[in-house]
Amino acid sequence: MKIKYAKRMDNLKASEIREILKLTERPEVISFAGGLPAPELFPIKEMKKVSELVLEEAGKQALQYSTTEGFPPLREKIAERLMDTGIRGNGDNLLITSGSQQGLDFSAKIFLNEDDIVVCESPSYIGAINAFKAYLPQFIEITTDDDGMIMEELEEVLSTKENVKMIYVIPDFQNPSGRTWSVERRKKLVELANKFDLPIIEDNPYGELRFEGARPPSVKSFDKEGRVIYLGTFSKTFCPGLRIGWVYAEAELLQKYILVKQAADLHSNSMSQRELDKFLELYDLDAHIEKIKKVYRKRRDIMLKTMEETFPKSLKYTYPEGGLFTWVELPIHLNARDILLKALEVNVAFVPGGSFFPNGGRENTLRLNYSNMPEDKIKEGIERLGKVLEKAMEE
Amino acid sequence: MKIKYAKRMDNLKASEIREILKLTERPEVISFAGGLPAPELFPIKEMKKVSELVLEEAGKQALQYSTTEGFPPLREKIAERLMDTGIRGNGDNLLITSGSQQGLDFSAKIFLNEDDIVVCESPSYIGAINAFKAYLPQFIEITTDDDGMIMEELEEVLSTKENVKMIYVIPDFQNPSGRTWSVERRKKLVELANKFDLPIIEDNPYGELRFEGARPPSVKSFDKEGRVIYLGTFSKTFCPGLRIGWVYAEAELLQKYILVKQAADLHSNSMSQRELDKFLELYDLDAHIEKIKKVYRKRRDIMLKTMEETFPKSLKYTYPEGGLFTWVELPIHLNARDILLKALEVNVAFVPGGSFFPNGGRENTLRLNYSNMPEDKIKEGIERLGKVLEKAMEE
Repeated sequence: MKIKYAKRMDNLKASEIREILKLTERPEVISFAGGLPAPELFPIKEMKKVSELVLEEAGKQALQYSTTEGFPPLREKIAERLMDTGIRGNGDNLLITSGSQQGLDFSAKIFLNEDDIVVCESPSYIGAINAFKAYLPQFIEITTDDDGMIMEELEEVLSTKENVKMIYVIPDFQNPSGRTWSVERRKKLVELANKFDLPIIEDNPYGELRFEGARPPSVKSFDKEGRVIYLGTFSKTFCPGLRIGWVYAEAELLQKYILVKQAADLHSNSMSQRELDKFLELYDLDAHIEKIKKVYRKRRDIMLKTMEETFPKSLKYTYPEGGLFTWVELPIHLNARDILLKALEVNVAFVPGGSFFPNGGRENTLRLNYSNMPEDKIKEGIERLGKVLEKAMEE
Repeated sequence: MKIKYAKRMDNLKASEIREILKLTERPEVISFAGGLPAPELFPIKEMKKVSELVLEEAGKQALQYSTTEGFPPLREKIAERLMDTGIRGNGDNLLITSGSQQGLDFSAKIFLNEDDIVVCESPSYIGAINAFKAYLPQFIEITTDDDGMIMEELEEVLSTKENVKMIYVIPDFQNPSGRTWSVERRKKLVELANKFDLPIIEDNPYGELRFEGARPPSVKSFDKEGRVIYLGTFSKTFCPGLRIGWVYAEAELLQKYILVKQAADLHSNSMSQRELDKFLELYDLDAHIEKIKKVYRKRRDIMLKTMEETFPKSLKYTYPEGGLFTWVELPIHLNARDILLKALEVNVAFVPGGSFFPNGGRENTLRLNYSNMPEDKIKEGIERLGKVLEKAMEE
């Protein structure tokens, strides 16, 4: 049997992170590899309550087919929450998706023909890169510093490349780098997208998890022409198991996402949408987010403090003001995949950074997650990793 | 602003059915248009119980990210249920999808390059046609009779066309025709797929809703080479709001679906998968299906009896032994879209059949659904429709 697959299948590989996560499921492993929220913070009691209420009050509707766009009251509530980021719209601007991963897949489906160019940060989110790859694009990575993409480099690319079709950015506590764009760069990005008439995909799963400082306005908030598509999710602020994310866009663009959603899976889970809506009605999500932030802030602090104490002094790593990750750059001659094998020998795991560069070649990087391990294990794990790194750098 | 979309977006139109459904939401309309299950049969009390238990027993896992493949015990239980259709595998052959619509989208994504050919029944399921269209294929429709596709015509196509990439069929209570393939045609289909080395997508959302006669073995059950991909769903036997469907395939093929699922939305709703698994553990789904069948059988009977009594004698329509639909052929000079406008004047709705033909040209057909209206309304609605049809045929 030699069944012929579509050409795109040559471009899809099993996610390295998920393969590593399988290796790290042994309970003795201290894992900084995943991007999982802390399950001990999930509002289980409240979920029981809202689940019961939804089934009592609207069981038939919650279990029936529903509209592709999503549950209208939930969409309204999300629109209200987005006001905090300077986005002024309403529920009609929203489509509920199966996690924001689905919004990434749809973005590529809507904009990309084979060989079209996606411009993204270097490094960028591996899940987005994988979603986009199914549409056989070219990637151009733009160098980033602590303030976001280098705008001169972006402008140079946009001025010289013909078939750029979209710009993909994660401006708040970027995955994997943990860095946040400055307001100035956000404005400039929209200016350049206007000049070159391009859509921007603003992916923002972590923005609400800010431990310190003020939340900057979203890239979308500077968009006067309706070219920024804002992707959000409840996976990090509520729970990921319900798979509820959203696409916020202006009417014409949103209509494309709705069409694609209809063909892809008709609509998102009706029951979960209503449960989440009921939660937002009865409980205080912001208070819940405060609880999450308090825990994650402590975990970040202990991780960074221990890194400072035990990592070789010459290593560079980022200081995330929120979100889930910090990002480490090793000396150029070291390969984080080799380091991982040594770390696993002492039962510590992380994600080598190479896969976050769609065009490859940066194997001297790694991502550390702090949201899913208790403080004592973070301390212990980073100490062990520090020793592994020190040894590797001496060799 | 002139943002450039991917070429595939020219091929995606809003589903006519969904647009019609919007028109028919007025409560006075007797609608035979949708394909909705009867919500009064949803096991709401049982859902409350299982939802409570899942959150109590495994709340953290139910709300956390989970594996792309799906919840292992649920996959095992589905594999056991599939034994009834002659499929002998286990949970490892299964991927949980967001409804079987997602399995359709994935199938096209995995097999189709632009201009590749999908061979399908004439007529075929509109949701599949729309999902496939996003990948810019050509369609070749094969004439069907009461026993399924005409095999001589299929063989002729497969012998003469170079770039056929998959065969898509709905062998049980087909949507829209309500017809079921004979065992002989099922065997022959697999034989031809073997001969021409092609995958078959067997879409089976309705097979369990058989009102009379014995369930035939699935197409998959005749597959010795692992080239049949079987799509199923709980949308019609449990409820659609949870969006739980599945792909059953042999290892190599399933691996492709898993890769695509990972890039598309990571995994299906963890909570709903566990709820459904718990339902299957605590309750008797087959007994529940018997209840559904009893109600739908009566509705089918009243619909067909009233059609016999009131429809013009020269009209042809199918006799479904199960499922949700019957299919009407009007004289060739009549257009069901015009008839629909007249039917809506007397508050009756249905779906014109034209959209079920991917290459168009069969506007003298229509689909009637009987699962979602009470018996008295079915009688009343069919009587009204009978008058509309009689008048149209006299003109």
